[in-house]
Amino acid sequence: MPASSLDELVALCKRRGFIFQGSEIYGGLQGTYDYGPLGVELKNNLKQAWWRRNVYERDDMEGLDASILTHRLVLHYSGHEATFADPMVDNRISKKRYRLDHLLKEQPEEVLRRLYRAMEVEEGNLHALVQAMMQAPERAGGAMTAAGVLDPATAEPGDWTPPRYFNMMFKTYVGPVEDEASLAYLRPETAQGIFVNFKNVLDSTSRKLPFGIAQIGKAFRNEITPRNFIFRVREFEQMEIEYFVRPGEDEYWHRYWVEERLRWWQEMGLSRDNLVPYEQPPEELAHYAKATVDILYRFPHGLEELEGIANRTDFDLGSHTKDQEELGITARVLRNEHSTARLAYRDPDTGKWFVPYVIEPSAGVDRGVLALLSEAFTREELPNGEERIVLKLKPQLAPIKVAVIPLVKNRPEITEYAKRLKARLQALGLGRILYEDTGNIGKAYRRHDEVGTPFAITVDYDTIGQSKDGTSRLKDTVTVRDRDTMEQIRLHVDELEGFLREKLRW
Amino acid sequence: MPASSLDELVALCKRRGFIFQGSEIYGGLQGTYDYGPLGVELKNNLKQAWWRRNVYERDDMEGLDASILTHRLVLHYSGHEATFADPMVDNRISKKRYRLDHLLKEQPEEVLRRLYRAMEVEEGNLHALVQAMMQAPERAGGAMTAAGVLDPATAEPGDWTPPRYFNMMFKTYVGPVEDEASLAYLRPETAQGIFVNFKNVLDSTSRKLPFGIAQIGKAFRNEITPRNFIFRVREFEQMEIEYFVRPGEDEYWHRYWVEERLRWWQEMGLSRDNLVPYEQPPEELAHYAKATVDILYRFPHGLEELEGIANRTDFDLGSHTKDQEELGITARVLRNEHSTARLAYRDPDTGKWFVPYVIEPSAGVDRGVLALLSEAFTREELPNGEERIVLKLKPQLAPIKVAVIPLVKNRPEITEYAKRLKARLQALGLGRILYEDTGNIGKAYRRHDEVGTPFAITVDYDTIGQSKDGTSRLKDTVTVRDRDTMEQIRLHVDELEGFLREKLRW
Repeated sequence: MPASSLDELVALCKRRGFIFQGSEIYGGLQGTYDYGPLGVELKNNLKQAWWRRNVYERDDMEGLDASILTHRLVLHYSGHEATFADPMVDNRISKKRYRLDHLLKEQPEEVLRRLYRAMEVEEGNLHALVQAMMQAPERAGGAMTAAGVLDPATAEPGDWTPPRYFNMMFKTYVGPVEDEASLAYLRPETAQGIFVNFKNVLDSTSRKLPFGIAQIGKAFRNEITPRNFIFRVREFEQMEIEYFVRPGEDEYWHRYWVEERLRWWQEMGLSRDNLVPYEQPPEELAHYAKATVDILYRFPHGLEELEGIANRTDFDLGSHTKDQEELGITARVLRNEHSTARLAYRDPDTGKWFVPYVIEPSAGVDRGVLALLSEAFTREELPNGEERIVLKLKPQLAPIKVAVIPLVKNRPEITEYAKRLKARLQALGLGRILYEDTGNIGKAYRRHDEVGTPFAITVDYDTIGQSKDGTSRLKDTVTVRDRDTMEQIRLHVDELEGFLREKLRW
Repeated sequence: MPASSLDELVALCKRRGFIFQGSEIYGGLQGTYDYGPLGVELKNNLKQAWWRRNVYERDDMEGLDASILTHRLVLHYSGHEATFADPMVDNRISKKRYRLDHLLKEQPEEVLRRLYRAMEVEEGNLHALVQAMMQAPERAGGAMTAAGVLDPATAEPGDWTPPRYFNMMFKTYVGPVEDEASLAYLRPETAQGIFVNFKNVLDSTSRKLPFGIAQIGKAFRNEITPRNFIFRVREFEQMEIEYFVRPGEDEYWHRYWVEERLRWWQEMGLSRDNLVPYEQPPEELAHYAKATVDILYRFPHGLEELEGIANRTDFDLGSHTKDQEELGITARVLRNEHSTARLAYRDPDTGKWFVPYVIEPSAGVDRGVLALLSEAFTREELPNGEERIVLKLKPQLAPIKVAVIPLVKNRPEITEYAKRLKARLQALGLGRILYEDTGNIGKAYRRHDEVGTPFAITVDYDTIGQSKDGTSRLKDTVTVRDRDTMEQIRLHVDELEGFLREKLRW
């Protein structure tokens, strides 16, 4: 039985040290989370799996790690200053502010129906409703109040202001003076760091089309209503690829990346049934996109986006390049008066310059972690009638690969043996191996089931050659317990390397 | 011959794709840098080596990854709001602003001498001079002008304002309203994220003293004068440990960590001669520290801090805990009216609560990268009189472990063989293996010397069984070239796994 609710996951995450609320002891900073001892391992394992697949195993990808603080002009020419905004609306009674589309999604059907009628929009198309409301905000505010739109904080109808756009970028001032000239942004996506480095990467690596640039890093969005645990947050991490191709080959590569990313998430352990590709209809597309396929996942709170794969055409490189006229930029961009670089590609055969198209598979790390936890969470009834919670993560992604447990804590031969074995297994470089002596064996098994440790190895009297039957037949053997089957086998310690390498191989 | 100047390293980093200026195409955002395809690998290798040593290989450490956006109260009670400030001074003529101590360091001796006299401070103690100036800022500004302190931007004497303190934390507003209540900071150090999670980690892991919490992540400081490439920047990455011990055992553990960290940097390839432990004299100590030893490194621009190991006593946990009186907090802290958690430890034997002391080894990732590059940079004269640049990084840290090079590009049997070999070696999980076909062999060797690739493997006619002598004796063998000795040996491809595992083992 998977996690029935987000609350169940949140509780496990806090209890076992996966994820805590950010700044928790001061009441929390909404929309920020801290990854604890196990969360950081799970997250790092996911990121490393992505990097290995997309950078190491390919012959057409380079990595990058650009800064978070971003020059204002980058986000001016990318279009974010003008358009990276969400519609929001205030309730004059409760003084609460909401993101309009989120607020509407939570309304009872009859309230929504009245609103559709008032705004003269065909029922069922929420996107069109929001658009209509933003085109006539005064009328929309009145219509919301008249329709009896409820405030989730009070569950009472609100007195609503006209909705308006709110830019989601975090601002700060860089340098000793706070003025327009020193304004900078925390990047709202890692993508722009890739685009503005296109020439740097091309010049230093001599890549030929098609090729991609991959990046993992933090991004920041001032969400009006962060919610659903680590799903919608203000500080999050992205795994983004910008894959540069010849115009005309873009549709092929777009399909290619949708398939590739779907496959990868399955390899991470998400079941195909819970992954739903969703082709955005034209009216939902971002201004830069020719086509976008979202990979949705059945989260405990609903079917929502895990990754988006967009065909961004030449919009981004075109927006940031100098010589726009000369390059015949077609995408709708601002005239760039500031860029010092020609972000284009010189065809090695014809010598002609052109601006590559770009396919962008953009995945959320935190959303990935949430999906993995949700998929792995299992509540099982045991033959003896007891219940256990087990996190059936892929062994390669598990925060702890092996727990090495001394059967008793008061026998130095046993505890020292276990410590040496832990060090020996750790040296294999397979991930975190834990020396575990915090409780009795039963409790240790239970804890490690709950955090997804695939193997528990116990060092006992047999291991140190002090079997009850007086023989030393079992000397240097240990029990290896499998998390999922709970079966135990006995292996010689020299067999462990081969066993674990095989089980933890990608 | 090592790098003679920072400029030489900066040029190599840009040319080969290690490090670029942040937001470069818009004139750059000062104090920010982007890590390119090779830089990101070097940086990640360094971080992973640190994590392996400090989290995986120990039995007394947990990891953490806290958020960057930080609640104002965290940095209020940590003391940063009041004291995390640098002295700065403006030149009324050029309108330039400088960090006072940095400005003074760059002055000619006779100017400084006049200033010491004017401020009545004993010559040679710059720290005392700055302190005296900040205690009498009006007098100090006049004295600077009278002493003829030069403005580095103009090389002319300036007309200086009284120096004043400038808080180095970046501010932003979280949520839809910009006011006092929504003010938050970008963390100026990762440490605070560890302290405020002390109870969360303790509760979820059942650790006993002594134990530590380790974290790697970005931190932000609004430096007035960022400089020396990635040495003093506004956005940087830290590798920090907070190691919690019983009061009374703190001095032992402080010495322990100084030794341990010195040893580790040497294992990373820094020579002992270039590492200088420096015990801060009492007047230099931060307000929270009982003792601090800096590990200085001979950077191309001078002997400067690479890591600091501080004994922070109970200052931090004490500052963030509730029940301060009851716990008998001794360190100088604000009275905490807001914390909801008791950040203390209950002695398992006596049942008594107390606040642990903490030892903090805090290293800069970017400074580590700079030290590694600087130490590894070598200019060699070859027997034939030519010169080569070679980056003698430890093989384990090298961005690319192996370049697999097809001898010619127009023979599919050779290129396909090389690609298959690359994939096979990549699967060993030893780091990045590159299929390299961008130039002739000589150029490829030269490039890989410059970026520190320890091994170049060439697939040639012999490999595919088409030796000139007509035999297939050398089928499935390749040449392996060593970066440092430039010697080539011929190995069977089946021998490569063992060879590389041995050479790339930590």
